[in-house]
Amino acid sequence: MKSQVIQLKSRPEGLPTSDNFSQAEQTLAAIKTGEFLVKNQWMSVDPYMRGRMIDRKSYIAPFEIGNTLEGGAIGEVIESLNPDFPVGSKVSSMLGWRSHFVSDGTEITRLPETPLCPSHFLGVLGMPGMTAWTGLNRIAELKAGETLFVSAASGAVGSVVAQIGKLMGARVVASVGSDEKAAYLTNLGIDAVINYKTCGDLSTALGQAAPEGIDVYFENVGGEHLTAALNHMKDHGRIAVCGMIAQYNDTTPTPGPSNLAQIIIKKLKIEGFIVFEHWDHYGEFAAQMGQWLASGKVQAEQTIYEGLDNAADAFIGLFEGKNKGKMIVKIA
Amino acid sequence: MKSQVIQLKSRPEGLPTSDNFSQAEQTLAAIKTGEFLVKNQWMSVDPYMRGRMIDRKSYIAPFEIGNTLEGGAIGEVIESLNPDFPVGSKVSSMLGWRSHFVSDGTEITRLPETPLCPSHFLGVLGMPGMTAWTGLNRIAELKAGETLFVSAASGAVGSVVAQIGKLMGARVVASVGSDEKAAYLTNLGIDAVINYKTCGDLSTALGQAAPEGIDVYFENVGGEHLTAALNHMKDHGRIAVCGMIAQYNDTTPTPGPSNLAQIIIKKLKIEGFIVFEHWDHYGEFAAQMGQWLASGKVQAEQTIYEGLDNAADAFIGLFEGKNKGKMIVKIA
Repeated sequence: MKSQVIQLKSRPEGLPTSDNFSQAEQTLAAIKTGEFLVKNQWMSVDPYMRGRMIDRKSYIAPFEIGNTLEGGAIGEVIESLNPDFPVGSKVSSMLGWRSHFVSDGTEITRLPETPLCPSHFLGVLGMPGMTAWTGLNRIAELKAGETLFVSAASGAVGSVVAQIGKLMGARVVASVGSDEKAAYLTNLGIDAVINYKTCGDLSTALGQAAPEGIDVYFENVGGEHLTAALNHMKDHGRIAVCGMIAQYNDTTPTPGPSNLAQIIIKKLKIEGFIVFEHWDHYGEFAAQMGQWLASGKVQAEQTIYEGLDNAADAFIGLFEGKNKGKMIVKIA
Repeated sequence: MKSQVIQLKSRPEGLPTSDNFSQAEQTLAAIKTGEFLVKNQWMSVDPYMRGRMIDRKSYIAPFEIGNTLEGGAIGEVIESLNPDFPVGSKVSSMLGWRSHFVSDGTEITRLPETPLCPSHFLGVLGMPGMTAWTGLNRIAELKAGETLFVSAASGAVGSVVAQIGKLMGARVVASVGSDEKAAYLTNLGIDAVINYKTCGDLSTALGQAAPEGIDVYFENVGGEHLTAALNHMKDHGRIAVCGMIAQYNDTTPTPGPSNLAQIIIKKLKIEGFIVFEHWDHYGEFAAQMGQWLASGKVQAEQTIYEGLDNAADAFIGLFEGKNKGKMIVKIA
């Protein structure tokens, strides 16, 4: 059996290009007792993977040049010598960026039966959805009646943050990078949506969208968005720092906000988090999200690129704002 | 009775100068029933007062041009028609920057008898000491065995942070702006002291002083100090943000740290605080600090300027690093 794989050819400088990736074919050994063969059907590309392409100490080891990339994937067992993973099982793994793999079940999760497309376990029911839920519930502790601001609000995480924020009883202000994305969020019932590319001064626009001030900022972007949020936070506001996508491709250090003294003046609490440290709450999240999805209270938008050949383009597209909702690669 | 007062003549641009202050004489009416006359003996100058010289919304109202300045002061009752404040009482007020005032007791505290010089109620036993204790105990929750980094560590707040940090069982790394101040902290038993003006790259020096990483950063300075601290925080480190004195005299916005993504990578918690919101814990603090002072476990250094005429110079001196410990003006 051959597996098509995507490898890191070179570390990107700035925005990744297709030259940073190479395709290869690997021969998989026949499965042994206790093992099974998975054919991947869907794989995830996520902004955090950009950080793993840098050779530095972080919360997760960097990718090595010449190795196959990794990331969330959903596949189907097509051969099995493991009774816990019979043929036909749908499985979730961190072994994306490849067409097939052999496993003994280590760090592989069998997916429950659901009427939803299994790809949603890479999005609204997976890491991005759990990130949104964790940031609002366990980091910022958003309360009904508060004002929530979320940036990158049409993305995999942001679009769930915005919707959960509404379900938690908050007034939700969102920022996005196109009118089409703004319309998508408005259709979801989000209270005020800013197109940060066309609004003029972002801080002024945010002040108009949230004249009452912001209780919770769900930070996905950094830079000018953080500056604007700091200007309009209320006293004792909380900032859950999930990502700073504006800076992931920086080749030279970009200065931070000049208004950090707002942290003192407003007695703000700013907390970074990594969803994997909260995974023991996944069951609680999944139960609630499952209900919201079944009842139509949360919409799970996806942008799907077809074919492993296009995985690098899908990944690069994350930084060009090409996705609405979760960016997914359909491998099969 | 005449009171000599210092008024805000103009709002400073950048570092305050003596031209921003003017002296005046005011006539006080004779005291009425329930009132008393206070002769101020000591007054405080503190960095936060610079913020009140800016016309902006903050946690405390700005000073108005042409009005007498305000701030912590210790005085003695010299005439009284109020049995709760008999002649000879030592009182603490926010009515500094003046030689005398008349009060009916509103927001005036009678000081307890103590063998200490009453000026310490403006420093180690007052707002700065309480700030140090609050930041470590109630914001950062420093634990024994952790590494604490404190900037502006020879100042009124920082010198108490460093000493309490040791008493709480932490390894303490401190930064100061002169070799004399470094020697002062070394003599206090602080584990590692950096002179940020002569150490070369501050982040490198901090990495050498705290090779194990930093659990808690007590932030008094901002700018380069915050950048360096972010680089060397441990996972789940906490930053108590008390002040950013490096920026108080900025005339144009100074960019913030370019490494704020460390907040995510290390899952940091950053919290600003204002000590006045924690004043209900003053008794708890004062009991502990009183013991530490009585047993010699905390040293209370003061830098004293003589005469109300020199109050503006004392205040300006705060931003020129002229104080070791608490900067105090002796009025009488």
